[in-house]
Amino acid sequence: MKYFEDIVVGERVAVGSHTFKADEIKAFAARFDPQPFHVDESAAESSHFGALCASGWHSAVVWMRLMVDARHRMMEAARARGEPVAAMGPALGIRELKWLKPVYVDDTIDYASEVIEARVSESRPGVGLMSIHSTGINQHGETVLSFISTTFVERRPVTP
Amino acid sequence: MKYFEDIVVGERVAVGSHTFKADEIKAFAARFDPQPFHVDESAAESSHFGALCASGWHSAVVWMRLMVDARHRMMEAARARGEPVAAMGPALGIRELKWLKPVYVDDTIDYASEVIEARVSESRPGVGLMSIHSTGINQHGETVLSFISTTFVERRPVTP
Repeated sequence: MKYFEDIVVGERVAVGSHTFKADEIKAFAARFDPQPFHVDESAAESSHFGALCASGWHSAVVWMRLMVDARHRMMEAARARGEPVAAMGPALGIRELKWLKPVYVDDTIDYASEVIEARVSESRPGVGLMSIHSTGINQHGETVLSFISTTFVERRPVTP
Repeated sequence: MKYFEDIVVGERVAVGSHTFKADEIKAFAARFDPQPFHVDESAAESSHFGALCASGWHSAVVWMRLMVDARHRMMEAARARGEPVAAMGPALGIRELKWLKPVYVDDTIDYASEVIEARVSESRPGVGLMSIHSTGINQHGETVLSFISTTFVERRPVTP
């Protein structure tokens, strides 16, 4: 990962994509969000969604997993180049999380994140804070998920 | 569930509580948030958290599960009293989600939700929108999680 000082506002990262299968939609929802339209095809058909669709929390946590994997690849690449690797995370929170469209069975969601703000922490001047705007877009080009998250990022060590 | 017209702003619901065990913390994180401090005790000890702690997404989705269960109990109770049951959900989104404190192994989080706003949808006057402020509080009385969510609630059918 880059140090806080290397972050460029406006930079965009392709986080990864994921196809939501019926089995995993139902397994996630059975554990964490057992509303009828997330766990049962026939109940979903008679709901306003019209078909089985993923819990909104599910489409959000898949972003988290893909982001952790993407960061891991970036860190490995930096290490391979002999570059220092800055510490990152955890997140402080999320704002403006919107579930804009349902994620139906076999939909493929392509996630991306764009840096929208970088600032030094007021309470901890030794750390930077980065806010990113993340989206998930389905195979029809529709945005299904949008949110902003803020994460700690290590500042570059001062060279005396 | 109550119809939109029966919602009282300021009303508080005890959603339920959950004790986070090491095995489930690691299983959730291995699938959705495999950062070292969520999946590995020794890596967590050398992190700034000092010990294994749950993914913030995990503490949020446990609220969702307990809320679905709580709604189900309220619906069953209404049916048992012979009262009509209004349709509810899904959620439109989340705002101001804050992970304020870590959730460590064996912490018990008590979740509650308070109605903070009720308004008729501008785009769909037939439905109401309810915003609730939800919190998770640990056994030391510390708030670990806080967020606001907005959900569709059915309006009372007009009697001619």
